[in-house]
Amino acid sequence: MDKGYVHVYTGNGKGKTTAALGLAVRAVCAGKKVYFAQFIKGMEYSELKCVNYLPNLEIHQFGRDCFIVNEPTQKDIDIAKEGLEVCAQVLAEGKYDLVVLDELNIATLYKLFTVEEVLEILDNRAPHVEVVVTGRYASPRLIEYADLVTEMKEVKHYYQKGVPAREGIER
Amino acid sequence: MDKGYVHVYTGNGKGKTTAALGLAVRAVCAGKKVYFAQFIKGMEYSELKCVNYLPNLEIHQFGRDCFIVNEPTQKDIDIAKEGLEVCAQVLAEGKYDLVVLDELNIATLYKLFTVEEVLEILDNRAPHVEVVVTGRYASPRLIEYADLVTEMKEVKHYYQKGVPAREGIER
Repeated sequence: MDKGYVHVYTGNGKGKTTAALGLAVRAVCAGKKVYFAQFIKGMEYSELKCVNYLPNLEIHQFGRDCFIVNEPTQKDIDIAKEGLEVCAQVLAEGKYDLVVLDELNIATLYKLFTVEEVLEILDNRAPHVEVVVTGRYASPRLIEYADLVTEMKEVKHYYQKGVPAREGIER
Repeated sequence: MDKGYVHVYTGNGKGKTTAALGLAVRAVCAGKKVYFAQFIKGMEYSELKCVNYLPNLEIHQFGRDCFIVNEPTQKDIDIAKEGLEVCAQVLAEGKYDLVVLDELNIATLYKLFTVEEVLEILDNRAPHVEVVVTGRYASPRLIEYADLVTEMKEVKHYYQKGVPAREGIER
């Protein structure tokens, strides 16, 4: 089986989770199995519903129903660590061809777990598994480790004009 | 009905079409109708199959089954112009909530049609229609016109290591 690569989508622009979702859809359309883990987020995003339509796609959330405001709570840490453990197993078993670790960069930024722990589970993955990691502020160590890194750079954003996040577009 | 905005995904990094595809999926999951037009491309990408799974999504290609190498042929120009006409009608009618104009920036780069023609069909769209335009080398005039612009910047890419485009990941 072919070697799987590690992609990172980072930067302050729109499109990181969206690109990961697009890649997940392309992969299932090609007959691959996809495991999509969302860290930090536990909100009811529209994209969660796509498992009702697409085969071989699982989405699991390992976050609370609100964003971390100042400091993470013990609950934030516990959920994230549990998520990392689940993902470690999913990566090692190799039953899924593509594993998305959405917003994982934010989890390491908040020190819910360490970059070293992340690199370890990536190292221990079944070799054919392709991995996508998203989130602003990707750690330099993860960037060094990854095979493909795209920075989504905000050139212009309508949030600055006061447009709120809308269902079906941003969430 | 709410105003629709114009998004541009440009830059030399991976993730532009993929993000547009992800946005299309999120939108249909929220009950919206999506028209996804691909300019330049006429190849059998995996993502074309997602219309078999998802409701309210149409994908139409207005390109040949190979990329433009040096100069566009008359065939390239004809197909692109036909595509722009179809999209003009789709945008004006407003039956779709989201219209993706994938690789349109490449079509204007190759002068298959002009940026002025593009801005005109955007101006004449039904006001609630959200539009996503993708492709490298977005015209400065389109960037000025758009509400949201993200530059996908290549930080690292495995193409440089000789990894070819793979089914279900790149295509």
